[in-house]
Amino acid sequence: VITGDKSGVPRGGRVLESGPQDRVFLNFVDHGGVGIVAFPNGIPLHAADLSKSLEVMQSKSMFSELLFYMEACESGSMFPDLSDDDKIFALTAANSRESSWGEYCMPDNDTVNGKHLNTCLGDTFSIAWMEDSDLGKLGSETIREQVKRVKKRTDKSHVSQFGDSSFEDEPAGGFLLQDTQPGSSAPLPAGHEGNRFSVRDIGLQTAWHGWNSARHEEKSEAWQELQQVVAARAADEALFDAVVRAACGSKAGPRCIPEMKEAQLDMKDVHCHRELAMAVYESCPPRSAHDSGGWNGFNMQFSQTLANLCETRQALAKTQEDLLRIVHSECRIASQAAEAAIARTALPEVVV
Amino acid sequence: VITGDKSGVPRGGRVLESGPQDRVFLNFVDHGGVGIVAFPNGIPLHAADLSKSLEVMQSKSMFSELLFYMEACESGSMFPDLSDDDKIFALTAANSRESSWGEYCMPDNDTVNGKHLNTCLGDTFSIAWMEDSDLGKLGSETIREQVKRVKKRTDKSHVSQFGDSSFEDEPAGGFLLQDTQPGSSAPLPAGHEGNRFSVRDIGLQTAWHGWNSARHEEKSEAWQELQQVVAARAADEALFDAVVRAACGSKAGPRCIPEMKEAQLDMKDVHCHRELAMAVYESCPPRSAHDSGGWNGFNMQFSQTLANLCETRQALAKTQEDLLRIVHSECRIASQAAEAAIARTALPEVVV
Repeated sequence: VITGDKSGVPRGGRVLESGPQDRVFLNFVDHGGVGIVAFPNGIPLHAADLSKSLEVMQSKSMFSELLFYMEACESGSMFPDLSDDDKIFALTAANSRESSWGEYCMPDNDTVNGKHLNTCLGDTFSIAWMEDSDLGKLGSETIREQVKRVKKRTDKSHVSQFGDSSFEDEPAGGFLLQDTQPGSSAPLPAGHEGNRFSVRDIGLQTAWHGWNSARHEEKSEAWQELQQVVAARAADEALFDAVVRAACGSKAGPRCIPEMKEAQLDMKDVHCHRELAMAVYESCPPRSAHDSGGWNGFNMQFSQTLANLCETRQALAKTQEDLLRIVHSECRIASQAAEAAIARTALPEVVV
Repeated sequence: VITGDKSGVPRGGRVLESGPQDRVFLNFVDHGGVGIVAFPNGIPLHAADLSKSLEVMQSKSMFSELLFYMEACESGSMFPDLSDDDKIFALTAANSRESSWGEYCMPDNDTVNGKHLNTCLGDTFSIAWMEDSDLGKLGSETIREQVKRVKKRTDKSHVSQFGDSSFEDEPAGGFLLQDTQPGSSAPLPAGHEGNRFSVRDIGLQTAWHGWNSARHEEKSEAWQELQQVVAARAADEALFDAVVRAACGSKAGPRCIPEMKEAQLDMKDVHCHRELAMAVYESCPPRSAHDSGGWNGFNMQFSQTLANLCETRQALAKTQEDLLRIVHSECRIASQAAEAAIARTALPEVVV
């Protein structure tokens, strides 16, 4: 879509058709992990593929300057290939080793028109730049000023910048929108202390508060949901634990498993990581109806584990193909277990 | 212990040695279900056995008047045999069809000496009579007055009374303690609106708030605990569901299962119920280290299910022995599943 490629775009869908004179602003918000971000439907976007798309945009002269805001966990891992003279400036909600945070969350701060929505209404970084933009100063406020204000307000993760900052003294409004009203330069209100959650935990928090506040007749369904979310998290932990165990094998020494699970190695072997990440998407069980593959908002944290395995595979005496086989195999085992669990809960009311 | 029987009492343990002139006050607080209450260690007490013990106390002339306060879920089911002239007056925290409630609970109202204890510090009924007694009017306040004040303050369950109320115009202090200070007759403060939980849910609430407030290095252990509590509740639901399915069988029609699960039939066949309840204690899996048998604070609600089965067994074409076999069999299956789950989580760190 961002490269202007219309193939594969549904009828009526739009693609970016910008030219060499355009200032382009891109904003991405979804779940993420080291080297990957999710889309509501379809395969996740790998950092390697995002890099390629940005190169294509460059080669097709689709922008004079490109400003990219990204909200996702570990979004600081998504722009490894930007240089300081390619006219692309990226700002991410988090660095490469931490989750981003939800805000205006249940149970107290999630009210719209008097109704509790039992979720987080926004994410801290997005709220920060949107509230700053809402002040109406975009015509004169520079990117540099907005970045500074957004970094200050986003206090639960480290807003990070990548690429070419040569144009950060231009007005943010040249990218976001033109505003002719006189604006306010009042300081942004601080983030809410209560009811903010790591994005990793929003699913569980939603299920908990759904059960906790359910009326009597809704209690049973809410409990099923809570139970399912807890079981899915536990199953995802067990799945990546099993991958690590298999990769460490019996000869790697007792520190291998905890190290592979806890390390935060930089993703350098992008190709290896991409292969393993796509294997998880294809072979691991979706944990809820709105997951299109094996990744979800909780388990994307284990994308770091895949990076650790790729970066250490020589010491583990494993080839990329070995790791790929392990991931596919453990995903299949997990899928079978998930199907068996579904079959158990779907018992008919009367056994005939 | 209450009948003065010293056999089976550990060295140094005390038994009641009251005589025919004594006013006796008994107070019991623990988990309960229809027809049963738990003890911290050892087998639960069945209503049938409590009735027998009270008869023994009577035949041994161990009291002139007996006042019995009981806090437990469904405690209103524990005194089915009291009559209005046997000099025993029982007051229960709940009727026979509802749980009792915890108060001064996490996350906000559980602070002692500045430290959050992550539990409920008391139960509403017990708090009510203790706070009333603390007012220091026991020398003149009658049992009738205390009962009235306790019923009013205990607003989440129905405080119920059983037996002989002929002596309720005597001062409560004659039973609880003698107080010579001038007391206060100020109204009891109302129960706290926030942070009160059904006793059935205190275990889960404790596990949740333990995880939710855990610091980084405690998060993993707290998550294991939460996961275990959720899984145990789900397993107990599945266990009693399986008992009902087996008891209904294939010929009982589609309404049998939901009816056996939802009905609140009075326990009349006390012997049948006692047998099934003891079978659960003996054969079903303990869900945590502090359970001495198959009953726990959560699953004691399903004691009602056992009563439903006993009361309906003719329509189900089942003998008491059939029901007993079903309970033992499903308990064994559940125990095997629980052991398998423990074996899975106890995997060694390195597979050799």
